[in-house]
Amino acid sequence: MANYKIVIQYDGTRYSGWQVQKNADDTIQGILENAISEVAGSHVDLIGSGRTDAGVHAIGQVANFHIDATKKTDSELIEQINSQLPNDIAVIDIEKVDGRFHARYNAVSKTYRYRIHTSNIANVFERRYAYYYLDKKLDVQKMREAAALMEGTHDFKSFCSNKHMKKSSVRTVTKIEITQDDSEIVIDYTGDGFLQNMIRIMTGTLIEVGNGSRDVNDITGILEGEKRELAGYTAPPQGLCLMKVEY
Amino acid sequence: MANYKIVIQYDGTRYSGWQVQKNADDTIQGILENAISEVAGSHVDLIGSGRTDAGVHAIGQVANFHIDATKKTDSELIEQINSQLPNDIAVIDIEKVDGRFHARYNAVSKTYRYRIHTSNIANVFERRYAYYYLDKKLDVQKMREAAALMEGTHDFKSFCSNKHMKKSSVRTVTKIEITQDDSEIVIDYTGDGFLQNMIRIMTGTLIEVGNGSRDVNDITGILEGEKRELAGYTAPPQGLCLMKVEY
Repeated sequence: MANYKIVIQYDGTRYSGWQVQKNADDTIQGILENAISEVAGSHVDLIGSGRTDAGVHAIGQVANFHIDATKKTDSELIEQINSQLPNDIAVIDIEKVDGRFHARYNAVSKTYRYRIHTSNIANVFERRYAYYYLDKKLDVQKMREAAALMEGTHDFKSFCSNKHMKKSSVRTVTKIEITQDDSEIVIDYTGDGFLQNMIRIMTGTLIEVGNGSRDVNDITGILEGEKRELAGYTAPPQGLCLMKVEY
Repeated sequence: MANYKIVIQYDGTRYSGWQVQKNADDTIQGILENAISEVAGSHVDLIGSGRTDAGVHAIGQVANFHIDATKKTDSELIEQINSQLPNDIAVIDIEKVDGRFHARYNAVSKTYRYRIHTSNIANVFERRYAYYYLDKKLDVQKMREAAALMEGTHDFKSFCSNKHMKKSSVRTVTKIEITQDDSEIVIDYTGDGFLQNMIRIMTGTLIEVGNGSRDVNDITGILEGEKRELAGYTAPPQGLCLMKVEY
């Protein structure tokens, strides 16, 4: 058997997210498994680095799969898999890796980007890939101060949409970087892993700090309180993109 | 009456082109006229700088319209019009101009961009805005030589899809610039005006030169022959975007 690591790009707009559900055709994982199985000639299980929500995009999602040793070159494999995929999902890199490599267990760091479009002039070409927040001005300096309080190792229970999670909700967010240009505020989150909806809730909370409906120092209390109700709203999915996974 | 010049951006993917046809909801012009009429309180005719085909995009289309003098500021007008528009059409600039200004008659130069995606790795976020040409390598140097033969003042009848055109098909193409990076070939066309499908036929012809199925020097004969059958195929609309109109 050969173990392949792949890097995947997708426009999540029309999908129900990464994870296979009842109807495989609605999910990125399901569509990829079907495409790879077609090329391999038998059913293949695909292990993703983690789930992405419905409507969330990826530029650097990583997954791995085991297939019988093949004479196909890497570029033949990538071409054959892509020829089975719709044009909003693409495999952009493939590499044969050690048999023990596991895309989820071995991931050490993930980077997500959240884009907030703030210009009062819409960019019609970017509307699927940014959250249009045109209501008020956002104070980016305050958002940066609040983001700094989120960095580090904390119990992020207040920033998790799954209230029945049994496993630990402690995570380490190594960096939150906020940049701004004429038309956009971009928030890059890097950490060892993120809980369900965690980045979208962090983003909603940072927006509430930025628009003045919340104080910078609220963040400490939200983290300590460990209750979802304490944090801000869940920012919509289309602004979010999984940029890279490091091993 | 006040005469307003507007700059418009649109994603043409789901429209039947600029020009109003039977069903106004299918065309950019129709949708804009409805939005502006709503804001003005009575029917407004919109004069575009020219038509764009179904599926063609614009970053800098220009149009003008006359309405009764209003106390609304330019930014109020732009905001009110945009609030009536779907999210794939946006007015990005508005300016009160001389009553005699006419968006079509006064246009002196137009620039269009045609994007050809050539990487064998798809970019899923750009697929609506580029022509995916992954079959063969294109010789960009030969394409540049052929493009140079198209520049200047010629009768472009061979590059016009309308065989029953009665008016002159003489146009001046001031510049065709071809740039290339890892994943794309971009062709920028500037001229005093372009015939129906002219840029898409020029692009198809340049691609045929680039892939070796046609000689550079064929261009001269195509221009002189003045027959549509002599030129190459019509490249698809999604790669084309109207960048700017100068007055």
